[in-house]
Amino acid sequence: MSAEQAAELIQDGMIVGMSGFTRAGEAKAVPLALAQRAHEKPFSITLMTGASLGNDLDAKLTEAKVLARRMPFQVDSTLRKAINAGEVMFIDQHLSETVELLRNKQLGKMDVAVIEACAITEEGGIVPTTSVGNSASYAILADKVIIELNLASPAGLEGLHDIYIPQMRPNRQPIPVVAPDSRIGTPYIPIDASKIAAIVITEGKDSPSNVLPADSETQAIADHLIRFFKEEIDAGRLTESLLPLQAGIGTMANAVMEGLIEGPFDRLTMYSEVLQDSTFDLLDSGKLTFASGSSITLSPKRNDQVMRELDKYRNRLILRPQELSNHPGIVRRLGIIAINTALEADIYGNVNSTHVCGTRMMNGIGGSGDFARNSQLSIFVTKSIAKGGDISSFVPFVSHVDHTEHDVDILVSEQGLADLRGLAPRERARVIIDNCVAPLYRPALNRYFAEACARGGHTPHCLEKALSWHQALNTEGNMRSLLAE
Amino acid sequence: MSAEQAAELIQDGMIVGMSGFTRAGEAKAVPLALAQRAHEKPFSITLMTGASLGNDLDAKLTEAKVLARRMPFQVDSTLRKAINAGEVMFIDQHLSETVELLRNKQLGKMDVAVIEACAITEEGGIVPTTSVGNSASYAILADKVIIELNLASPAGLEGLHDIYIPQMRPNRQPIPVVAPDSRIGTPYIPIDASKIAAIVITEGKDSPSNVLPADSETQAIADHLIRFFKEEIDAGRLTESLLPLQAGIGTMANAVMEGLIEGPFDRLTMYSEVLQDSTFDLLDSGKLTFASGSSITLSPKRNDQVMRELDKYRNRLILRPQELSNHPGIVRRLGIIAINTALEADIYGNVNSTHVCGTRMMNGIGGSGDFARNSQLSIFVTKSIAKGGDISSFVPFVSHVDHTEHDVDILVSEQGLADLRGLAPRERARVIIDNCVAPLYRPALNRYFAEACARGGHTPHCLEKALSWHQALNTEGNMRSLLAE
Repeated sequence: MSAEQAAELIQDGMIVGMSGFTRAGEAKAVPLALAQRAHEKPFSITLMTGASLGNDLDAKLTEAKVLARRMPFQVDSTLRKAINAGEVMFIDQHLSETVELLRNKQLGKMDVAVIEACAITEEGGIVPTTSVGNSASYAILADKVIIELNLASPAGLEGLHDIYIPQMRPNRQPIPVVAPDSRIGTPYIPIDASKIAAIVITEGKDSPSNVLPADSETQAIADHLIRFFKEEIDAGRLTESLLPLQAGIGTMANAVMEGLIEGPFDRLTMYSEVLQDSTFDLLDSGKLTFASGSSITLSPKRNDQVMRELDKYRNRLILRPQELSNHPGIVRRLGIIAINTALEADIYGNVNSTHVCGTRMMNGIGGSGDFARNSQLSIFVTKSIAKGGDISSFVPFVSHVDHTEHDVDILVSEQGLADLRGLAPRERARVIIDNCVAPLYRPALNRYFAEACARGGHTPHCLEKALSWHQALNTEGNMRSLLAE
Repeated sequence: MSAEQAAELIQDGMIVGMSGFTRAGEAKAVPLALAQRAHEKPFSITLMTGASLGNDLDAKLTEAKVLARRMPFQVDSTLRKAINAGEVMFIDQHLSETVELLRNKQLGKMDVAVIEACAITEEGGIVPTTSVGNSASYAILADKVIIELNLASPAGLEGLHDIYIPQMRPNRQPIPVVAPDSRIGTPYIPIDASKIAAIVITEGKDSPSNVLPADSETQAIADHLIRFFKEEIDAGRLTESLLPLQAGIGTMANAVMEGLIEGPFDRLTMYSEVLQDSTFDLLDSGKLTFASGSSITLSPKRNDQVMRELDKYRNRLILRPQELSNHPGIVRRLGIIAINTALEADIYGNVNSTHVCGTRMMNGIGGSGDFARNSQLSIFVTKSIAKGGDISSFVPFVSHVDHTEHDVDILVSEQGLADLRGLAPRERARVIIDNCVAPLYRPALNRYFAEACARGGHTPHCLEKALSWHQALNTEGNMRSLLAE
């Protein structure tokens, strides 16, 4: 069927699930056809994906006003504007939870799933491409399934996936993943073939990763963290294999992972969401023995090489549904080391991952909460300042909380590392200000903390000044007025 | 050995673990002896418990300045004052996490564990009394163990406990609890008998529960929730057995559970922390088939009856380590319905469970985060106003976040119920203000929300006013100034 014909299966008001996670493996043709049709004849849908889409699809769907509701994650600047204008209702969810909610009928009934595949088995099983995301449960739970069979996807992808669906509650058995390399399911999405309403032939490519090379601050963050890992090994709290690693998407997490190549580490494993360039650098170095994720998102050059040489990595990779890659119970069982990026943190260790000045959505919480809450080590990294010092990433009181003080073990900036484990709030503030805050903003935060402590409380604050740093940023465009005594 | 002699094993600077959870099953004699000794010869320790202690022990230890550090929970007014004055370093932890951190050497090495027991097996196994809490892992991880053998505890307690310790990471197997009645361990704490450094004979009683009878607001909250459960059954999202229930400690959760007796429910189960009067009322009614918890805390009258007739309940009760009763992976597997109390909530669904005006600690987060994050239904209840209307429990911006917008499905006050599932922040605000907020404060929150929306953002706020409600409470003793146009 043509993409336009298949898109006709999607009508105004429907709930639609699409493949795609960290701009990998998204359905490419049907969303475009939807956008085109909506320009001619307006309609809107609820769109659920794995996570972010590539190929500017969220922008195109937003411009065509196709998106009434969108979940659980996005990274698109056009969509972001519409979300912040209140035009698209965005539901920012822990990435492990969307299909659980859908399965329990708490998000309505999915009408159509649109899934990119590299192959279809004789029984109608769908072999995903570069991501699994929520595709398996969407295909299973939707009334109808549209498959985009991408002829440009490397045949070598077959066999990488491991599809497992937890049983319905209350009769669920333990999910038997006990290590990153546990294979517990099928290499394809098993669905009733009679639900396949359309097969669309495509050959589009994934968007490449936009990870940047490490700058000096990013490198300093990586160095602090590598030093910390070494100290943990020396203290007998970790071995040279560390524990299964999770790294959020982006330049900073990528740099930290790169740093592991040089260190005294051996037989590392990953149990993460997205496998980036650094994953394959680590595999090539021999330091990493196995990587489990939900998607592969690479730079153009790395992508060409990896997709051409998939056989080389075949026995050291698994792609899982994000419900499993991010599963709180598995994260807790394995004892993950979770490394995620903070937008800002406060002096007591609360982390904002999503909202600029407490109001404007950036991307969404993604999987950071799935990992941070249940990991053995919950690490958040951020540069201490942004915009040349106009903004301090460390503030008296975060303007939005995604990760509470209970869930943050380690904070790292280019200035240094704050080890918050076992500390009370007043102790955390001391360690964070001394180790992570930029020297420029340190006196101002010390003044705030001293004044707050004089007033008392377990978590001392001066409420009338708590959000003043963000107010200054909103009204003056920077936080420099806080620097004055 | 006498309590005084045993207490000599505990010296200045030590890390000490004690039994006790929701004022049940705490070691009673040794802490008193410690307090007495410290009055004569000052010293201080780090004290870890399961949760709260009874018999005013935290007060007595605080007055004697024995507590340098305290975790993971408390409910004592004297200790609370010392915490808020910055005199005791209090570490407020998810209750499932303390022993995980200790096992991974992230909280230091435990020197001495003091555990109340109703019996000791021939091999040196410890049979706990009315709570398990963290006792098992404390006894296993400590260098030395002091047992308080409580001769006043009913012999019928033997056999109620189910002690299971997860394996060390990274070689941990799935914890095989698949239902509230899963028995997976031993009925005693298995330790090396050579570690038992002292046995102290006691006969003190647990402090009784201080749960109050439901008042009209509490009853209204229970009624709203019962109606909601019925609607969920009608909509096919729950069955008449609901799902395993967790209820936080206290009057409101107790009232909700009582409400289930009258409703169209059948074959209910509990997978909770503390088993209160309502648990036994539900068992007696025949509506509840099984209750799993970590402690039993009852009113004086109920306690006498239950402890006398334990045989009657024997096959329908299990007491587990709090690491298991609150385990995120098990909560996720079973699909718990979690009912916890909020101190305050904001118009976007963030919940503060711990800090009055963002600074003054009440009790601690307890197990609410273990349950809320991973439950199938995360419900928070609160009265819409406090102190006769001086305080609104619903505010523009909570002064401390324990449960993020991502983790709150349902909010209930005596005014009504807000179903936040699948809603974006602006939609949540509408539903919360319309359904939960007291009529007195509704216009003021509507004004705030309207002004915030006019400024835009995914989660609209007026930062300069966001904490003004708490500032008013701090400076004027009430929030009534917000009522003026």
